[in-house]
Amino acid sequence: MSNPTAAMLVIGDEILSGRTRDSNMHHLAGELTKHGITLAEARFVADDTDAIVAAVRALSQAHTHVFTSGGIGPTHDDITADSIAAAFDTPIGVRDDARALLAAHYERTGAELNEARLRMARIPDGATLIDNPISVAPGFTLQNVHVMAGVPTIFEAMVASVLPTLTGGAPLLSQSLRVERGEGDIAAPLGKLAEEFPDLSFGSYPFSQNGIYGTNIVVRGQDGAQVDAAMSALAKMVAA
Amino acid sequence: MSNPTAAMLVIGDEILSGRTRDSNMHHLAGELTKHGITLAEARFVADDTDAIVAAVRALSQAHTHVFTSGGIGPTHDDITADSIAAAFDTPIGVRDDARALLAAHYERTGAELNEARLRMARIPDGATLIDNPISVAPGFTLQNVHVMAGVPTIFEAMVASVLPTLTGGAPLLSQSLRVERGEGDIAAPLGKLAEEFPDLSFGSYPFSQNGIYGTNIVVRGQDGAQVDAAMSALAKMVAA
Repeated sequence: MSNPTAAMLVIGDEILSGRTRDSNMHHLAGELTKHGITLAEARFVADDTDAIVAAVRALSQAHTHVFTSGGIGPTHDDITADSIAAAFDTPIGVRDDARALLAAHYERTGAELNEARLRMARIPDGATLIDNPISVAPGFTLQNVHVMAGVPTIFEAMVASVLPTLTGGAPLLSQSLRVERGEGDIAAPLGKLAEEFPDLSFGSYPFSQNGIYGTNIVVRGQDGAQVDAAMSALAKMVAA
Repeated sequence: MSNPTAAMLVIGDEILSGRTRDSNMHHLAGELTKHGITLAEARFVADDTDAIVAAVRALSQAHTHVFTSGGIGPTHDDITADSIAAAFDTPIGVRDDARALLAAHYERTGAELNEARLRMARIPDGATLIDNPISVAPGFTLQNVHVMAGVPTIFEAMVASVLPTLTGGAPLLSQSLRVERGEGDIAAPLGKLAEEFPDLSFGSYPFSQNGIYGTNIVVRGQDGAQVDAAMSALAKMVAA
């Protein structure tokens, strides 16, 4: 399991208050797994500079990559870009190439590039822009932190721009088996199987559906032959 | 804003790998908001003792309450109870009252109370049990940490058991206004309004629906009269 690790930081009062349900973490988790990067942890913080700075510092030191979502729009509560700059003690200001992107976009759409919208061109020194094919205002990468929008369609487009540029590891393979027995019945043999295959991870997830209680067993690992072997052993175990 | 603060800790590989989409955080966020407790942050960690211990220690020191979800079943990857005990340097073992609950349940259902299922009666010393009306195996509260199941129906039932026992503050009130203008057009007057009402929070959330671009503006606060006054000012501002 020497794949690079990543963390996600979701920024926004609206998620912690229960108004909005986040979907970006689930999307990123699936994409990283396919790309061979392990999502090791995620944090959700409010629109609060100190909370964002502390989380960015902790996560960027602990992981190869950090992905953030939210807080890069034009309004007073969009404080992510300034907080990322503060976390790395980096100056920030309106950058010419980002301003040019916005100017061209608003000229096309007939809206005014006013002071509020110009805030979306504030980029920390030394950052690389992340393309926003949907509403133009860019994200950015500063050191190992990839700063993206919170609106799911834009977040997903930005992930699609960034991921191919990152070095991944072996994709995590998984196979699953549905067993119509309670977790408690299969826990002991499953634990033994997990010891026999120390490079794989075995998860068990109880379900109840139409009055049937059962367990989905998921085997994950990077070596396809090992996953196959574990699934065969699992099938024998369940049939016993 | 002197309401008590809380943090949530979601435990489980299956969520970080993208296999399962968490719904417990969104549920808890809404319930806490109604109860007058501010969900200040949330963390998601893998089934890893060190990660759970570190998160529990940090969150329980920083907040009045911590709510955890996941990892209290019978299988080898269910390590939450032992990790919580470790976080507080507290002994843990099978407790008689928890064992009696399980014994009665499995006698009713005809399943065996085997060694794996008995793990669900492991409770740290000094903890209070949390009722599980669905599948009996209890959660528990140790100090300010409320440890609950990951299965959403059970998690929600446990939240319903615990919340009425906690002291809340004034519920957070919110009103919202849908405006068919881009965020960039209303950002400046909205920022001014936010300065005029320092005890309220003003969120703006862009949407695009059937080709219409607009913004939902949400005003939140504990004083209903202030929220009403801000909504009136907002309506005037938008009409101007």
